Order: sequence, then structure tokens, then C-alpha cells
Amino acid sequence: MNLADLPTPCLVLDRGILRRNLDTMAKAIARHGIKLRPHMKTAKSIDVARMATAGQSAAITVSTLAEAEYFSGYNIKDILYAAGITPQKLETVIQLNHSGANIIVITDDSEMATAIGTHLTPPRALIEIDTGEHRGGIAPDSPELMEIAQRLGSALAGLMTHAGHSYAGRTVAEMVRIAETERAGIVQAAERLRAAGHTLEIISMGSSPTALHAASLAGISEVRAGVYMFGDLFQAEIFTHTLDDIALTVLTSVIGRRPRENRLLVDAGGLALSKDRSTETAPKDYGFGLALDLDGKRTMGDAIIRRAYQEHGVIEGDPTHTALDLPIGTKLRIAPNHTCMTAAAHNRYHVVDGSDEVIAIWPRINGW
Amino acid sequence: MNLADLPTPCLVLDRGILRRNLDTMAKAIARHGIKLRPHMKTAKSIDVARMATAGQSAAITVSTLAEAEYFSGYNIKDILYAAGITPQKLETVIQLNHSGANIIVITDDSEMATAIGTHLTPPRALIEIDTGEHRGGIAPDSPELMEIAQRLGSALAGLMTHAGHSYAGRTVAEMVRIAETERAGIVQAAERLRAAGHTLEIISMGSSPTALHAASLAGISEVRAGVYMFGDLFQAEIFTHTLDDIALTVLTSVIGRRPRENRLLVDAGGLALSKDRSTETAPKDYGFGLALDLDGKRTMGDAIIRRAYQEHGVIEGDPTHTALDLPIGTKLRIAPNHTCMTAAAHNRYHVVDGSDEVIAIWPRINGW
Repeated sequence: MNLADLPTPCLVLDRGILRRNLDTMAKAIARHGIKLRPHMKTAKSIDVARMATAGQSAAITVSTLAEAEYFSGYNIKDILYAAGITPQKLETVIQLNHSGANIIVITDDSEMATAIGTHLTPPRALIEIDTGEHRGGIAPDSPELMEIAQRLGSALAGLMTHAGHSYAGRTVAEMVRIAETERAGIVQAAERLRAAGHTLEIISMGSSPTALHAASLAGISEVRAGVYMFGDLFQAEIFTHTLDDIALTVLTSVIGRRPRENRLLVDAGGLALSKDRSTETAPKDYGFGLALDLDGKRTMGDAIIRRAYQEHGVIEGDPTHTALDLPIGTKLRIAPNHTCMTAAAHNRYHVVDGSDEVIAIWPRINGW
Repeated sequence: MNLADLPTPCLVLDRGILRRNLDTMAKAIARHGIKLRPHMKTAKSIDVARMATAGQSAAITVSTLAEAEYFSGYNIKDILYAAGITPQKLETVIQLNHSGANIIVITDDSEMATAIGTHLTPPRALIEIDTGEHRGGIAPDSPELMEIAQRLGSALAGLMTHAGHSYAGRTVAEMVRIAETERAGIVQAAERLRAAGHTLEIISMGSSPTALHAASLAGISEVRAGVYMFGDLFQAEIFTHTLDDIALTVLTSVIGRRPRENRLLVDAGGLALSKDRSTETAPKDYGFGLALDLDGKRTMGDAIIRRAYQEHGVIEGDPTHTALDLPIGTKLRIAPNHTCMTAAAHNRYHVVDGSDEVIAIWPRINGW
């Protein structure tokens, strides 16, 4: 099968680029001699998980319990569920762990810590530390840290933090600085707990930019990252990779043309691309995505999805190029703003490797 | 089963509100004595389609061929596929029509018109007219109109237009005016074709706001609308319905709390809610959604999802209310910005009818 034969819109995943991105991250982490725990929230695919964990212990991170159950069913047991656990989800985790999984949960709440710590068969738990993102977690110097640790008791396995604010960085130097804040913050919390006699096996930090650019990961036992696998336009602007390293694109067909206005209408809209506008605040705003030709090449310059309706995308041509005028049905590929959001609208990948031949179809585990 | 028992995040659909919204639209269209062809792009559910077409001919509109195939399998045959057809999709339509469906296609392109008109077994086709949205379609006075009609030949069944620019309207008077522009534009195109001897069976217009508010639909044979069924925060701001008429919400759980900052973290993020920001340009900006209590009531005032990560949503409390402080695991409901986008992240509805009892689970047909 060939890309030209596929119904549109659909996902195209270039395995060669994926492999290169995986290698880059693996080497970046290997410098520090610690473990990479790939975050499967982006790929949600066992095929990708196998590639991302090749050559190292099969430990992963997930963003949903649906992912946890799916990967556990494929014999990946060491799973960090990286969103705050609730009483109801704790019961699900315990059931999955009874069936052979080894799901680690996170919390930043003392009542929840009690619920975990007093459970007959608690999962291992990490305390979430806020090192500057201000989403979840408690501050490294927070008085609650000691109380949560005590309440977790023997369930306490370590600490985790996520420097999601690295996405606001606009220079490599900023990424280096944020990575160090992330590292220093979680290590500070770990030192407080160890001084009080707690044993911490896991000190987990991560975001793709800080994982790649950290100067030191001293005191860290593992790094989590996910978006680096596929990459996207936004990550290309914050130094995670270059524009040529985007492994995931959306195959689309031209469904309307207005050459006098240098515009094309395509069948990839807000559902197929997502309404994510990450690049709005980046140096270059790519609208809802960048149009490439069927070979994934940037032959149309900055042809950008300027408007996204549910099933319609409007490509605005590059004013420095000849006006866009392609026959109805012409296939193009769209590089996404935010690959995690774009992939989630689709249930499978059409895998290529540098050519237009579809060499595999890989399913995704969406939903909750 | 009760809402409190459901894993989160998930969709909740209130059948009573849905029925009321369907009645409102049915009455609005009945005033004009013409047909409603409900657009199933929002609901993508046979259960909703049956309610939306009750008491009238089972004719619907769809946004994908996946929907067309699904509804056709449930014996709804009269289907308008309301996105520009391509050569590849034309073949799929013809196959589905051979299997008993009666899918009508649309085009605004003369080459595509030839491909349809010269096919051995063409589907019925409508020419798309642009009455001001400037997405797809040709102008009512366009010279291409006659050529496309000629090329379609006996496949020509009529005209369609979509006043999506009604979403930019901010008063009922504007909606009335835009509806009249939509009506007058397509009728002008129809008159030109009829004067040239063409027979037009279908003159189809629609968008929820113009369908509801049109003063006259003279010359129109049917109206398409979809988002009115479930409603959302944006539609409530552009006079399609009130805030109490939003039938679809996302059930979510509290996964973190920061009472000192009047914030809650919930497990409905950008995937469960979508990254749609429709209300950004509306009189009131609801961020990524409005938080309601488990009963769907607005007991927290303007508690708004201010930030949406992949699986995390940050609710910012109403400054005029007591600070948000709810135990981890507390269930809330989020009214969406844009119901079509939010629903698409989920594969089923948990149906209630004014209480917290789940009376049915209805599947959705997502993807392409």
C-alpha cells in the first residue's frame, strides 16, 4: 500500500525519523548514566513503546489508566501513572497490580496519602514536587512533604516532578537553567526526606526539553519524556529537535481551491489536527499546522493551516511562492503544532520509512 | 449505575435537555414548512439521530464518510455528505450507494463536476454556494456556476450553502441579517440555474444560529444544523440557547487542590475537553470550560478551566465565591466551549435524564 491510496485524513508516522529521535534522547540520558522512562502519552502504541524501551529496562510512563492496562497486557509491567491518583483510580490500579502490573502512583495530597498508606495492598507511590510549573505538586521546602511521606509509610517509593514550564523557555540556555531548577528542587526534597530516615528508590524528573538539555542530573534516578519521539512544530521552536525531525504528520486531501486568494481547502480540520495553538506564542506561528507535500517536503514554503473548522482546514499559501493551485484530491501532509493532541484524534498510525510505501499499521490506545 | 460510579473523564449527556433542544429547532424550522436535515457531525450517534429525525423523514447530514457508512448501516439512507468530494471519496460514496445508501455529495469545482457527471453511476450532487463564510463554495453570481451545473448534468440535484460566519454574529439582529444573506444568496444562484433550464430539487442552507433566527426561508427546501442538539458555552453566547440548555458535559474528578490559590486540578484536560477556545472572542471567555457540580448546577459561580494540559485541567475559582477546596476524587462536570470538538475525544455517552442515574450508554462513530 502507498500513501496515495489511503483515505484521508489519517496519521503518517515515519519510522526512520522516530528511530533517530529515540536515539538522540537515549544518548542524552545515557550521558548521565541514569534510566529513561519513556512517557507513552504521545504515542500510546505498543510498537512505539518497544522501540522506545529497546536496550533498556522496559519501564514506561503513562497518562491514563487505559494506557496502563494496555501496556501491562503487552507485558510492560513497570509503569508510572503520572497524574494525581484519586480513591476510585487507586482501586483500579490495585486491581491491575493484582493481575501482574506494577503501577506506581503519584500524589501531593495528605488525605490521599493516608488512603494509599493504609490500604491493605498499596501500590508504590511517589510524592509530586512542584519545581516551578505550578500545576501539581508541593514545593520542595513545603511542610506538607514530611506529613505526606509519613502517611504513605511503606508505600513511599520516591519523588517525581515535571518541569512543564520549560515549554515557556525560548533559548537553550533557559532550558539548561530550568532543568537545573527542576533537578535541584527535587533533590532538595529528597534530601529532606532522607534526613528524616525515609528511603527513596525513585527520583524522577522530566520534560523533553529539560531531559535533553540538562547539564547535570546528579541525584536523579530516571527521566521521563514523551513528545520528543514524534516531535512537532512547537518543539522545533524550543530546541527539542529541528523541523526535519517531525516523525508524525497528517495525510490530507485537497477538497477546494481558490488560487486567486492563494488558498486551498483540505480535509484536515480541527478534529484531525486538534485545535492546539502552541505555536501562537512561539517565535513563528504556524496556525494549526504546516503543509508539506506528499513526500513530507517543505516545497510550498510557509503554507500554513490558517483556519481549522471541524473537518475543513484552510491552507494559506506562502506569499513569496507561486499561488497554491492543486487539483481536488491532491494529497498533502500537515506537520502538527502539538503532536500529542493531533495523534489523539486518530486510532492508528500508517507507518512509512523514508518513502511513500506503507510498511505497517500500528494501533493506538485512546480514551480513558 | 450512577454518575458517581463512572471512571473519569467521560461524557455525560442529558436526554431531557437534548429533547428540549431538538424540539426548539424542530419548531423553528416547522414555522417555515420545510424540512430539517439534522447534521450528525456533533452527536455521531444513531440514538441521537433517531431522536433528531423523529416525526419527519429520516434525512441527515454527515461530516465524514465514516458517519455515512455507520448511519446507512442503521437504515438512514438519505445522507448529505457536507464536505467537498474528492475523486477517491467519490468511489467510496458510489460503493456505499451500491450497497443501498443514498449519499448526496457536494462540489464547487468544475473538474470534480466532470468526474461526477461522467461517472457511470454518479451520486446526486449539490453545488456549494458561498454566501459569505468564504470557506468553500462559489459566489451566487459566479460565472463558474453554469459550467459546474452543465458538467454535473443529470447528477445535479440542487444547491447548498453554510453560513458559518454566523458564528461571528453577536446579536440576534445580526443572525437574522446573516440568515437572510444566506437565503437570498442561494436563492439567487438557484434562479440563475432554473432560468437556464436546470431542475433543482434541493436548496439546502444552514448553521444553527441562522436556522433558528431566519425571518424567512422562502425558496429553501431544507435546513442543516447540528450543534444546537447539545449546545455549548459559545452557542449560549450567540443566542442559540441559554446556559441551562447545554446537554453535554464532561464528568471529571478533582486530582489536586490549592485552596490558597483558589484553584483545583481535575482530570479533564486538553484531550477530554479539546483545546478549542471559541469563547475567547465571545463576550465572556470561559477558558476551556465552565465547572459545574455533579448535578450539573452552577454552584461554584464562574469556576473556569483556565489551563488545559493533555490530561490535566486547572480550574480557577470565582473570586466572588469562597475559595475552591474539595477533596481529591470529588466529581464535577465541565460545560464545554465547543461541544462538537469535546464530544469527539470520547467514544460514548453516559446518558442521564435530569438525575444522576445513568440510564443508557450510547456509542459514537469517531474517526474517518
